[in-house]
Amino acid sequence: MLLHGYFRSSAAYRVRIALNLKGLDYGQRSLHLRRGDQFSDAYRKLNPAQLVPTLEDGSSVLTQSLAIIEYLDETRPNPPFLPDDAQGRARVRALALSIACDIHPLNNTRVLGYLEKTLGLDQKARDAWYLHWIETGFAAIEQMLAGSRDTGRFCHADAPGLADICLVPQVANAARVDTDMSKFPTIARINAECLGLPAFQKAQPQNQPDAE
Amino acid sequence: MLLHGYFRSSAAYRVRIALNLKGLDYGQRSLHLRRGDQFSDAYRKLNPAQLVPTLEDGSSVLTQSLAIIEYLDETRPNPPFLPDDAQGRARVRALALSIACDIHPLNNTRVLGYLEKTLGLDQKARDAWYLHWIETGFAAIEQMLAGSRDTGRFCHADAPGLADICLVPQVANAARVDTDMSKFPTIARINAECLGLPAFQKAQPQNQPDAE
Repeated sequence: MLLHGYFRSSAAYRVRIALNLKGLDYGQRSLHLRRGDQFSDAYRKLNPAQLVPTLEDGSSVLTQSLAIIEYLDETRPNPPFLPDDAQGRARVRALALSIACDIHPLNNTRVLGYLEKTLGLDQKARDAWYLHWIETGFAAIEQMLAGSRDTGRFCHADAPGLADICLVPQVANAARVDTDMSKFPTIARINAECLGLPAFQKAQPQNQPDAE
Repeated sequence: MLLHGYFRSSAAYRVRIALNLKGLDYGQRSLHLRRGDQFSDAYRKLNPAQLVPTLEDGSSVLTQSLAIIEYLDETRPNPPFLPDDAQGRARVRALALSIACDIHPLNNTRVLGYLEKTLGLDQKARDAWYLHWIETGFAAIEQMLAGSRDTGRFCHADAPGLADICLVPQVANAARVDTDMSKFPTIARINAECLGLPAFQKAQPQNQPDAE
């Protein structure tokens, strides 16, 4: 398997965690997003959205981090990323989507680029935007986690899964704008639990070959 | 079942289509998003993110439209929303997420509110933002659809599924800013196919009890 990603991309970070949790070997090809490597014709053929990550698994070319992670879970079922029951799966997917839809898309490279270049926002205004969506999203997720008996050592019970895979990269992003994590104690606790595991540590941005 | 939604919300529109395709009966409770009904304490208990939709199914309270739709597909398998094979499922999920992550979150009510109230953008600049993310996202989706032999009468083969459920509400949003759909002929064709079906027609914003 070959993962097209970037050390700072939190969507690629999710897929690295998933691959590591499944115990899979994979190669990495780095696309420097701020230099625009994703806009090459060759990459657009693989991924028309010109975003990372893309995973090649044999002849299959897979895009969208959550679709990739569900694919890995279906084709390599152990350890599972989703609980056995439909309600539990819906809860875990809702937590994952609360990050993947409600926070991350607002703060990715191309959106920050639009705020800077098209709207002329300075660094302070861009950081305020970034922090606003993290704090809004984390407030919801903290309540979803702290208010549920399904929350255990991890987001759902006592093994890491799809929600944790999304949570840890988002907490890493939150640190870029000095988010006060004392407001989100359950998120902070679960993040620390996850980062105690080698699968998460190995996937961290600073441990990638293209880290700067 | 009870759906908490809003006629103009495209995420609620997705769930309405899904419920109709499954042939399920449901009640609707409307939250007027621009008046702020979603910020009541009662609603926050149901949905900590204070977004629509929320679906109550017996004692289960489900949030996030894609998690709800996958739950409906798991608990009421016919007709299926996803293909049988893992690669096909990954393709359909990637198409759905290309809308649910890459387009819709940038153009929802709260983001447009931030652009207006916090950043002071006028209507013209907000419409340009709105159109930019639709055109960027649709260009990718058009290529994913037009370039694949898996595309049929619908996004994947000849029956409507998860990707179509996301596509039609996004095309409706695109019309709000007069998107030139002639640039996206495959999307336009599939949208028209879907809107020939009663399940999609019944779910359209203008056909909801709270339509203005």
